[in-house]
Amino acid sequence: MNLPSQILEQAVEEFSKLPGVGRKTALRYALYLLKKNPDELRKWSNVILRLAEEIHYCEVCYAVSERSKCEICSNPSRDHSTICLVEDIRDLIAIENTMQYRGAYHVLGGIISPVNGIGPVDLNIEPLLKRVEGNTVKEVILALPSTMEGDTTNFYLHKKLKPFPVSVSAIARGVPVGDELEYTDEVTLGQSIRMRIPYEGGVMRK
Amino acid sequence: MNLPSQILEQAVEEFSKLPGVGRKTALRYALYLLKKNPDELRKWSNVILRLAEEIHYCEVCYAVSERSKCEICSNPSRDHSTICLVEDIRDLIAIENTMQYRGAYHVLGGIISPVNGIGPVDLNIEPLLKRVEGNTVKEVILALPSTMEGDTTNFYLHKKLKPFPVSVSAIARGVPVGDELEYTDEVTLGQSIRMRIPYEGGVMRK
Repeated sequence: MNLPSQILEQAVEEFSKLPGVGRKTALRYALYLLKKNPDELRKWSNVILRLAEEIHYCEVCYAVSERSKCEICSNPSRDHSTICLVEDIRDLIAIENTMQYRGAYHVLGGIISPVNGIGPVDLNIEPLLKRVEGNTVKEVILALPSTMEGDTTNFYLHKKLKPFPVSVSAIARGVPVGDELEYTDEVTLGQSIRMRIPYEGGVMRK
Repeated sequence: MNLPSQILEQAVEEFSKLPGVGRKTALRYALYLLKKNPDELRKWSNVILRLAEEIHYCEVCYAVSERSKCEICSNPSRDHSTICLVEDIRDLIAIENTMQYRGAYHVLGGIISPVNGIGPVDLNIEPLLKRVEGNTVKEVILALPSTMEGDTTNFYLHKKLKPFPVSVSAIARGVPVGDELEYTDEVTLGQSIRMRIPYEGGVMRK
């Protein structure tokens, strides 16, 4: 696909670096931008510049934040003795949206993946251990993806956390609420049987 | 979905304006950019700024171009007596990629769509008529989408082109090469029968 303009070509090249975006979609995005007036494009350009220059990470949990300490970490009404460990901020947002969790977080910034060249040193593991060393943390909840990489990372963290007087838990895996048993994959269904919990009557959905 | 940072929120807002992009995908894009180093982001920002300030349109065919006349329009080996009319530059690129067309183009910049408030005056129709007036154009090929809006635009253009000594054709619609007849939609299949062409032996695929 040869584009008639170098600048357009460059824009397509940049856009096609976005996750899940190929050249066709990138061209669609670039042409969409072309239809905007220059002022709107300047706004776009500026927003991206601010991403580069103004965004910081919380020095405690490594969530994206404008200040040195994020809103959750600086909120005294949250339970800072419980840390939920997530891969990235998207998972943090997803858990926040459930309104079921009032503890703190720790954003790992990825998971251990030898294939992609990501090792423990590339992740925010040391700062997590520092937080746990402080002796105020009672529980670390592992909420990493249930993939091989996630399992590896969980295993590694479990080993690293063992010396500390902290309980380590992992989020429950099972048949999603509302899902049909017959359409649930075998691994999940098997796990939901092995990990069964006592039933005390009443509705389990909340 | 509340984001922990205003700048991130702004970036998500801008990205979610892109065609087919919702807030979740927009956040994915924004977080991808966040992981880049500031220099790369400055490059991004700059590319978008150049889209705003440096891109021009060919003064003949209205394709995106860096110069006042695009490569195709300034190429003497192309047949400038045939004009292929396309909705936007993506369609131009698609036709160029077939390597079956050696004529010129005219980019309409959209199609007539009363629902979206796009009328003939919003499109590059007047410049097309000016080109045809010059008496050097022998054929206009309508290559607009086969939607109701495309049909409306074709009809409108046909009426506008009638006073000129120019033949107007439309690209063939029919069963795509390699497709099974039984899975082809009825309108297309019906059209492919009505629009049948003489068969002179040999392979019709190229």
